[in-house]
Amino acid sequence: MRYELFYWTGIQGRGEFVRLALEDAGATYVDVARDQGDGVMTRFLAGEQPGALPFAPPFLQAGKLVLAQTPNILAFLAPRHGLVPSSVASKCFALQLQLTIADLVGEVHDTHHPIAVDQYFEDQRIEARKRAASFRTQRLPKFIDYFEQVLARGDGQHAVGRNHTYVDISLFQLMAGLDYAFPLAMHRLRRHTSRLRLLSERVAARPRLAAYLASSRRVPFNKDDIFRHYPELDDV
Amino acid sequence: MRYELFYWTGIQGRGEFVRLALEDAGATYVDVARDQGDGVMTRFLAGEQPGALPFAPPFLQAGKLVLAQTPNILAFLAPRHGLVPSSVASKCFALQLQLTIADLVGEVHDTHHPIAVDQYFEDQRIEARKRAASFRTQRLPKFIDYFEQVLARGDGQHAVGRNHTYVDISLFQLMAGLDYAFPLAMHRLRRHTSRLRLLSERVAARPRLAAYLASSRRVPFNKDDIFRHYPELDDV
Repeated sequence: MRYELFYWTGIQGRGEFVRLALEDAGATYVDVARDQGDGVMTRFLAGEQPGALPFAPPFLQAGKLVLAQTPNILAFLAPRHGLVPSSVASKCFALQLQLTIADLVGEVHDTHHPIAVDQYFEDQRIEARKRAASFRTQRLPKFIDYFEQVLARGDGQHAVGRNHTYVDISLFQLMAGLDYAFPLAMHRLRRHTSRLRLLSERVAARPRLAAYLASSRRVPFNKDDIFRHYPELDDV
Repeated sequence: MRYELFYWTGIQGRGEFVRLALEDAGATYVDVARDQGDGVMTRFLAGEQPGALPFAPPFLQAGKLVLAQTPNILAFLAPRHGLVPSSVASKCFALQLQLTIADLVGEVHDTHHPIAVDQYFEDQRIEARKRAASFRTQRLPKFIDYFEQVLARGDGQHAVGRNHTYVDISLFQLMAGLDYAFPLAMHRLRRHTSRLRLLSERVAARPRLAAYLASSRRVPFNKDDIFRHYPELDDV
């Protein structure tokens, strides 16, 4: 199966969670918009293609199937590429964790866009400072503690039992994004992230992922992305 | 299978999407916190139970399995109760739509809590007015148009092909919540919601759901819930 991944060029964004899983699996895929430009997604979003209508990128074409929503795409790909155990309990727990990661990613986005997604950060920076303060002091530690507790209940290195899954890959990406966006806040939380750090190192060292991360295909984090570094939103 | 549903008493919240699916399916379930109080959830959230650790309610116990995250619970229940077709394409599309509903519900929540979930609405009402204005004029029409387009691509009455699914039930609940929270904005959008209205009427008339909605088990919407009615956040 040759997959076609559709996502905005120029940022990692939510597409990166799918891209990392495809890379780790050694799957054959085309990053369509990087080849043909963002305009290639318009016909899907306008409903001109048959199949499932996406609300927004990322979406994946797999044969005749079109899938959108990051956790949905990952839950589809994972059993086909050994990235989740086959039991119902494991699949459900993996999806549950991925949805919790998606919730956290949404909250990260809203630290720089607390009022309106269609307005610039500069037009909502006062509100962004307030939201970011609440995020750093209340929400981020709660999510971090949760994921650490999940790892502690398993073997300490994997989110789902003793198996490497797409959730581990997403947790790596989550930590990378948080380190970029909130370096001071993450440094302050360092005593609470020991298992997540070990997991991240393990994931980043997987040969296919290490090759991808060192390649030019890994777009650097930047200020158009979901994870953004604004010093005024980090620990002060 | 006798299910145990765990969710905060006193509000519909995200738990209602699960409750409605269980009611429509005629499933045997206990609404545990309504019998025993919210404290019964503490041992799950504190990690004192085996199985999947929930980050937050709702969660469902099904035999030895514990599942959290609303779309995950629904995707688990649906094939067991005829609430989604068995094909991979249908299951994936249903989950994709449910995740998009969840995104919209999250944005509804943030209209009254744009800065911090742990602070009162009254302490963020200025920001709430701004966020709600953006929601009503930009985001809500975009989501509504999307779901109408999804219905138009099918038979006009069902989200997933010609089949009644858990997504239809959730779209009914979404419309009910939006009508409660934003009556003026929804009235203004009335020419754009004709298929969603027909779907909502069909779902509400299903015998088991009609009986549930008329019962005292259906907690009224209120100002502790996700869908809240603050006139200042509605169309002005």
